[in-house]
Amino acid sequence: MKKPIKIGLLGLGTVGTGVVRIVEGHREDLEKQTGSAIVVEKVLVQDLSKLRSVSVDRDKLTDQPWDIIRNPEIDVVVEVMGGVQETKAYILEALEQGKHIVTANKDLMAMHGPEILAKAAEKGCDVFYEASVAGGIPIIRTLVEGFSSDRITKIMGIVNGTTNYILTKMSQEGAAYADVLKEAQMLGYAEADPTSDVEGLDAARKMTILSTLGFHSEVALADVKVKGISKVSKEDIQYGKKLGYEVKLLGIAEKHDEHISVSVEPTMVKTSHPLASVNGVFNAVYVYGEAVGETMFYGPGAGEMPTATSVVADLVAVVRNLNLGVNGQHSTAPYLEKKLKTDEQISSKYFVLLHVEDKAGVLAQITQIFARHEVSLESVFQHPNEHNPKAEIIIITHDASQAGMNKVLAEFESLDVIQTIQSVYRVEG
Amino acid sequence: MKKPIKIGLLGLGTVGTGVVRIVEGHREDLEKQTGSAIVVEKVLVQDLSKLRSVSVDRDKLTDQPWDIIRNPEIDVVVEVMGGVQETKAYILEALEQGKHIVTANKDLMAMHGPEILAKAAEKGCDVFYEASVAGGIPIIRTLVEGFSSDRITKIMGIVNGTTNYILTKMSQEGAAYADVLKEAQMLGYAEADPTSDVEGLDAARKMTILSTLGFHSEVALADVKVKGISKVSKEDIQYGKKLGYEVKLLGIAEKHDEHISVSVEPTMVKTSHPLASVNGVFNAVYVYGEAVGETMFYGPGAGEMPTATSVVADLVAVVRNLNLGVNGQHSTAPYLEKKLKTDEQISSKYFVLLHVEDKAGVLAQITQIFARHEVSLESVFQHPNEHNPKAEIIIITHDASQAGMNKVLAEFESLDVIQTIQSVYRVEG
Repeated sequence: MKKPIKIGLLGLGTVGTGVVRIVEGHREDLEKQTGSAIVVEKVLVQDLSKLRSVSVDRDKLTDQPWDIIRNPEIDVVVEVMGGVQETKAYILEALEQGKHIVTANKDLMAMHGPEILAKAAEKGCDVFYEASVAGGIPIIRTLVEGFSSDRITKIMGIVNGTTNYILTKMSQEGAAYADVLKEAQMLGYAEADPTSDVEGLDAARKMTILSTLGFHSEVALADVKVKGISKVSKEDIQYGKKLGYEVKLLGIAEKHDEHISVSVEPTMVKTSHPLASVNGVFNAVYVYGEAVGETMFYGPGAGEMPTATSVVADLVAVVRNLNLGVNGQHSTAPYLEKKLKTDEQISSKYFVLLHVEDKAGVLAQITQIFARHEVSLESVFQHPNEHNPKAEIIIITHDASQAGMNKVLAEFESLDVIQTIQSVYRVEG
Repeated sequence: MKKPIKIGLLGLGTVGTGVVRIVEGHREDLEKQTGSAIVVEKVLVQDLSKLRSVSVDRDKLTDQPWDIIRNPEIDVVVEVMGGVQETKAYILEALEQGKHIVTANKDLMAMHGPEILAKAAEKGCDVFYEASVAGGIPIIRTLVEGFSSDRITKIMGIVNGTTNYILTKMSQEGAAYADVLKEAQMLGYAEADPTSDVEGLDAARKMTILSTLGFHSEVALADVKVKGISKVSKEDIQYGKKLGYEVKLLGIAEKHDEHISVSVEPTMVKTSHPLASVNGVFNAVYVYGEAVGETMFYGPGAGEMPTATSVVADLVAVVRNLNLGVNGQHSTAPYLEKKLKTDEQISSKYFVLLHVEDKAGVLAQITQIFARHEVSLESVFQHPNEHNPKAEIIIITHDASQAGMNKVLAEFESLDVIQTIQSVYRVEG
């Protein structure tokens, strides 16, 4: 038996509590897996006197971060406190002190991952962050190890449970966005201020991490085009269903001819595609590799125990490396130059719902505009609205460039017979 | 740059060809991933003069296994020739010579895995076998690394593409087993002698490997209860659909209170379960962990490039270990004693379809037999058959012990009013 490995935990919220539960509850299994006892040595908390749902010895608690970060007894710092600026300073200093890092912090890794990984490489330390994306799904390991031999060309993820819960409810119950959001807030699936989730920002951070890993290039948060779900209407969802699509908030990262695009946007996903049946708060990441083809990884995207499972799996990896003396030897830092796609290079199918005047010649005018910008159409559905002098037209295009679609939509804006461009969705599957 | 790593390939069939394609085609990526050039040094083939779809220098081909196994130049033996006895001898000798092993051979690992892993541990060598289960899905890595912190209690797998193709076609087209099998043989999805696939033997080998890894106990092939799909009728599938189930050939491994059961059997899977929508030749493995909860991993189960992706990902892992000098340090050998469940301890829901005489009192007799053996019923459907004096009864039980169900079925055998026990399925989801 080797010497015990001592960890310092930054934070004892939901995930931190789960980490303590697993490290204590699976003590023997973890010793068998790693050859070492793993001991929680110190835990940083804000309030030393708060009652906790896990028992941690009073003398292990501290409200002084340096008790952990500069504590020579501690081998591994497990960061589950969240936040960005202050947390980044702690982690950089912990690395400076030669400590290995396990973090669940997507904001930190999306915004400062490269800087942290560079410092880790300099100091010969491990930095693992499996829990930062898709909670309990070991997707980072899969990209880094499982597909190390392949060239990944597409990653599509349902990586935000809140929005997937909302869209699932809207689809299954025909409910409106605002009503489902309110319900999700009551159930604790959505925050009081839901902006980060519903506007796609949380998903964008996760896609930054996944695309950086999958494509080996430093994708920045600012490279991700983001559109949330707050404008998705129940009508859009119902029309989608009729035509064989489910609306999902997808993170989509693509690489062709060395050029990358990354977006987060509500997308019409064909019901036969495996992502279409990922419902509720579950997450899933679809990965397409040149050699392997289509794969998908499904599981819980958040929650105390699923997220803690990923944190402790990373901890096991750090401890195995410690016992072999090989920490910091396999960096996930990007090594290829980043080239972004232009709007001309981004291509997909689109779903367009228009409200138009119900009179002769309208469809001809519309289809001419598509033709002019070289957007060819897969199908067109027009049906009159009984209660209303306007008609609805749904168009699904073939693969078209985003630049071409932008030109089409700009012309629609100034076309008198179009009353509203009701909605535009990317189509996948 | 470190010295080139030389591999010897045993076999140049479908998977071997894919391995050469990836090692040659992704040469630069693999060097970046591992820090070493990977070189195919020798390839064992049966026929030196056969035309190949990949170009391998004539002087690298050999028909003498010892040219590879006892070749001091070769660092890693990649075994993609299949077979068991002879292949086992080659691999044990290669390990004896200090060579690391990557194999795609499920038969070998299911039957002789523990012996091979023991020899590897003795010699300090790596043995990796990701490609032996579920082709391109990195499921072994996921169990060993991704869920190292968790206790896995259930693994359910669609791990045979041939049978999943057949059942999907039967479900989607209402076709009969024999017709679809014939079509699958014509398309190359089924062998001329399909026994190993359709009788569940191939799936049983894969479940032996997965359950050994997931439960850390040495599950033997003989511990797996196996039933194939050759008796699945299109009526069963249609009745299942009406009640909200798809018939899938599932490998099911469970562990409760340290006791294990493993089976392969056609199963009624609720359509809302993620396994129910895994169609065609795709594979998927559903893993339930105490902490993580429900997860599922989906992808191609076979094929030249998907399987080669897994082989070369293993090769990357071996080469990284070689460069760190840490091969043979993390064995996947089981370390817990195996305890198997008795029939009293195995519990599930069941679907039973009976053909009975259409007269008063029959249902009462049948339900009394269930009650006598403490099998409680979730639902009962009876409907008369217009063309026939017999009626059909479908019963879905609550969770019941296999022992109890066996007693029920034994009594049914001798009950006059039951004409046929048409089918009995396990129910999941």
